[in-house]
Amino acid sequence: MKTVILIGARGKMGQAALTGLTKHKVITAGRSGDVDHIVDITSEQSITELYEKVGHFDAVVNTVGLCEYETFADMSEAQWMSTIMSKMMGQINLVRIGQKYIADGGSFTLISGILNVKPIPFAIADATTSGAIDTFAKCVSLEMPRGTRINVVNPTVLEEAWGVYGEMMPGFQPVPGKLVGKAFERSVDGFITGEVIFVDA
Amino acid sequence: MKTVILIGARGKMGQAALTGLTKHKVITAGRSGDVDHIVDITSEQSITELYEKVGHFDAVVNTVGLCEYETFADMSEAQWMSTIMSKMMGQINLVRIGQKYIADGGSFTLISGILNVKPIPFAIADATTSGAIDTFAKCVSLEMPRGTRINVVNPTVLEEAWGVYGEMMPGFQPVPGKLVGKAFERSVDGFITGEVIFVDA
Repeated sequence: MKTVILIGARGKMGQAALTGLTKHKVITAGRSGDVDHIVDITSEQSITELYEKVGHFDAVVNTVGLCEYETFADMSEAQWMSTIMSKMMGQINLVRIGQKYIADGGSFTLISGILNVKPIPFAIADATTSGAIDTFAKCVSLEMPRGTRINVVNPTVLEEAWGVYGEMMPGFQPVPGKLVGKAFERSVDGFITGEVIFVDA
Repeated sequence: MKTVILIGARGKMGQAALTGLTKHKVITAGRSGDVDHIVDITSEQSITELYEKVGHFDAVVNTVGLCEYETFADMSEAQWMSTIMSKMMGQINLVRIGQKYIADGGSFTLISGILNVKPIPFAIADATTSGAIDTFAKCVSLEMPRGTRINVVNPTVLEEAWGVYGEMMPGFQPVPGKLVGKAFERSVDGFITGEVIFVDA
């Protein structure tokens, strides 16, 4: 049994990840709500406090990253930057700071999303930062200390979220959260590192 | 003959690009030195001023983007951000702002670099932002207005820069600037869009 910090535990992607973590002691975290720890991944200090409070842990699973949706013509630099600071720099900081705290042989699992491979209107900032995170995990895996690992889950839209996103994703086939949970399980319980685990139908 | 704005014209990559632009009227730009226009791509205002001053142009070729080099363990958020603001957000802003000024059917050509495909120590920020720019160009090409195009040149190290970078890139084969110039030429004078043009040996 591993101790796993699950960030975004109350969201739909967090609930999907949870289905793959049933063997483990899961410590929940998120920006608000009924979680063990409040954390804002856009703040270095908040991330550091989370790790300090938890103490020993074997894995970090992140399922959050705020993205702004807008046409490229109308997306402002501020909208780009809020996406970059959360989905990209926030996730990088989870690993950058966490590498000093995580147990030997531990793992980080980040989240990207299929829109960097299957682009749709309004999602250029989401796609670009997903491309950044996929690349980051592949390359940084070669530098991780003490046998620690890093992977990214890159899922298509969840069946559980189809009601919200389905309209803007014509021709996409949603997948059940339990299938996405398998990807998180394979990252946390496997020995792979530097992989982008696509979950698509 | 097209009017091409070449940013970073005095650098080694700019000189390489120039060998592919001999048919055209080239307007040079850069942070300093002997160029037609001074521009700082990390400033929205500076980019806007460049386009306003030039007036009519058919192509933008960018060969600059500052990256910090450090181990992942030691790279600070500030170092990450200076890389992101230049190589990533700076290049996105060149296109974001430039889409309103560029002539119908014009083209943008950005620069990334082979380290997102062939990682080396100290280059995680370079690799990550290269991955972002490659993804950005592929996805945003579907949104470009008035028949405008966008591509990225993703070169390995130049022969002309081997003296500076060779030491940190064991097993890499440098390529001549003239070969990289062909990639810029193919982007500016061709009809391709949304492509990452790799130049590697």
